[in-house]
Amino acid sequence: MTDRNDTALGCLSGTRVLDLTQFEAGPSCTEVLGLLGAEVVKVENPKGGDPGRVAFRNHPELESPYFLLFNANKKSITVNLKSPRGLELVKDLARHADVFIENFAPGAIERLGLGYEVVQALNPGIVYAQVKGFGLGSPNEGNLAFDMIAQASGGVMSITGEPGQPPVKPGATLGDTGTGMLMAISILASLLRRKETGRGERLDVGMQDAMLHYVRVAFAVTAGTGRAAERAGAKVMSIGNAPGGLYPCAPGGPNDYVYLYTSRANPAHWQRVLQVIGREDLLGDPRFDTMAARVENEPEVDALIAQWTRQRDKHEAMRVLGAAGIPVGAVLDTAELQSDPDFERRGIMQVIQHPSNGAFKMPGWPVRHNGAALRVSPAPLLGQHTGEVLGEWLALDAEQVAALQAEGAI
Amino acid sequence: MTDRNDTALGCLSGTRVLDLTQFEAGPSCTEVLGLLGAEVVKVENPKGGDPGRVAFRNHPELESPYFLLFNANKKSITVNLKSPRGLELVKDLARHADVFIENFAPGAIERLGLGYEVVQALNPGIVYAQVKGFGLGSPNEGNLAFDMIAQASGGVMSITGEPGQPPVKPGATLGDTGTGMLMAISILASLLRRKETGRGERLDVGMQDAMLHYVRVAFAVTAGTGRAAERAGAKVMSIGNAPGGLYPCAPGGPNDYVYLYTSRANPAHWQRVLQVIGREDLLGDPRFDTMAARVENEPEVDALIAQWTRQRDKHEAMRVLGAAGIPVGAVLDTAELQSDPDFERRGIMQVIQHPSNGAFKMPGWPVRHNGAALRVSPAPLLGQHTGEVLGEWLALDAEQVAALQAEGAI
Repeated sequence: MTDRNDTALGCLSGTRVLDLTQFEAGPSCTEVLGLLGAEVVKVENPKGGDPGRVAFRNHPELESPYFLLFNANKKSITVNLKSPRGLELVKDLARHADVFIENFAPGAIERLGLGYEVVQALNPGIVYAQVKGFGLGSPNEGNLAFDMIAQASGGVMSITGEPGQPPVKPGATLGDTGTGMLMAISILASLLRRKETGRGERLDVGMQDAMLHYVRVAFAVTAGTGRAAERAGAKVMSIGNAPGGLYPCAPGGPNDYVYLYTSRANPAHWQRVLQVIGREDLLGDPRFDTMAARVENEPEVDALIAQWTRQRDKHEAMRVLGAAGIPVGAVLDTAELQSDPDFERRGIMQVIQHPSNGAFKMPGWPVRHNGAALRVSPAPLLGQHTGEVLGEWLALDAEQVAALQAEGAI
Repeated sequence: MTDRNDTALGCLSGTRVLDLTQFEAGPSCTEVLGLLGAEVVKVENPKGGDPGRVAFRNHPELESPYFLLFNANKKSITVNLKSPRGLELVKDLARHADVFIENFAPGAIERLGLGYEVVQALNPGIVYAQVKGFGLGSPNEGNLAFDMIAQASGGVMSITGEPGQPPVKPGATLGDTGTGMLMAISILASLLRRKETGRGERLDVGMQDAMLHYVRVAFAVTAGTGRAAERAGAKVMSIGNAPGGLYPCAPGGPNDYVYLYTSRANPAHWQRVLQVIGREDLLGDPRFDTMAARVENEPEVDALIAQWTRQRDKHEAMRVLGAAGIPVGAVLDTAELQSDPDFERRGIMQVIQHPSNGAFKMPGWPVRHNGAALRVSPAPLLGQHTGEVLGEWLALDAEQVAALQAEGAI
């Protein structure tokens, strides 16, 4: 269980990714490719690099945890894209790459002289990928966007929050990582096609468009009702379902809840709930015996369960209800998940040793390959691999690299 | 822009997926493989098939919109897995498949006699993929789970909602589709490796584990503070940032808001905001001139902007602010997204013709390949392709198929 796959033997071994992304939507995509064994070379400007290196950080002398989380399993080289020699270097690297990816502001990559036509002419086999806030050709294609802008304009916020209250931004960064994952899928599919044809593809995704993919249950509701899907708090929006939702646990802290759900497809769930909470006397009671009846009497149903959950902490409630065959999950916060040894034991969380930050525990890749977690390696220091990559990809020697540095190209 | 790639020429053309999944986490994964050109054969029980076919539906005589949304670009065959002959058929199909995937309840696939060892022995080159609620080897590995259980126990709900209020379930089905996307990535990577080695892989993912991947910004917060990341309503949890958040628009309906965000990395955003809202008089005002000052005076900052947004509808507010180079997005609901012709024009939404439901508009795949959207084809009727697939994969003729049907195997 604790064995880990070495990325040197990874699925994408031999695949070279030229990575001009920053912040999260792009980096989350290339990080996965790196975890799966690709050689991901992150191209950063010599003056500070990816702005994610300093985003949200508490310790000015260390790299931001944000950067460490989204840039594992990559190499970093510095290149001054504004210098003609630096630009030429990136073009040379593109000739040797399998994937080129960027998520600059709209139009920026073309202004740099690295638009699709240029790069494709250098390397017809390259997979050229772009992540933007809004899709190419959309009325907003020139607009700037961040994660929350995509979540607002892509339907996600409209269905998140309490009924009758303003929308809420989901804490998960669906606009960024959610989009990055979809691009990773298309890149891998293009690489498979390329094995047959030798030809690359041009890929582009808008973060707003990507959000539609994640709210399809809400589109199912709209297809059924003809109206916008509404916010339902912790309940399931699509249909009345009782019991289903969050139930308060001892000692009453902000995350002391369990989520309990009983499926329409399995009437036994409700019977199991009554047994666990010691209310077998209600088995067969017509007020609760069908899903329709329970939906009608939802406040009473919820009160019955809450009376039981309030007397237990969420871990015990989850343990007891889960063992009885009832779908249930304690609300776990990031501190609890971070300190639970089980995730580390299974390789879902891993401790890396970062050159400046030291030991750092972070989630790896949740899908296990042949029973083992993919090995996480620490995010690179700025320019840590400049010499190595220019040597291996372009056969430049130390003297040539020093000269490039002296002229400000790298 | 309106051209669409035909999946017959898709990236995964020639790849065969034997799909034993139901509901959403598994089907969302195989649907993407189908959109990208794989031949996805959905194996369903003859008595009703995937329970998703009837989930959340308003019209008992039609297929559920939920099913249509997650099962496009697939074929359906019926097989009675409880009959020895039916089980044998699935084993025969597995011999001819590249990918085998299932998301039954824990232990069910092994009880059916289709566990990893069995299938791998039949076809050593197969990629065998399993999606479960909790990771194999976790203390909860035997437990049942649905989307919301994963979102509760994987950290997502703890960071979604208003400060001081109970957690909220994000409307996006991150537990299901979010997990399905990660599995799709690992499957595609395994297929790439297989091109080199001829060997398959065993893949497994727990939905709870998958959630950690989407809340990494919250882990960055916890890494910095040592405490659980907290709920922040519509604001960004990680750091004070003003202005940033939802601003109310006319006429004041439940989704009449714009999300506006000004980046720390670009001080010009604030100056542009002042120009747009006609408050150039505040340029250089020390109460607002730095991010730190604006965070300190956030209620005043928000009031300034709201005064302007309340006088406009969200579309106008987005248009004007966006054109000025400010990151902004109107909160759009599913009815608005469904009826906006732009998404259909770009192929992000497509209208399919379903044999029983008729015309049905649904999101396709948001990543465009070579400037075109992948073509969506309608979800199959139950058993629609049984004869075709048994003929093409196993060379059974019509008579043999009829005999299988007569004996209740299909």
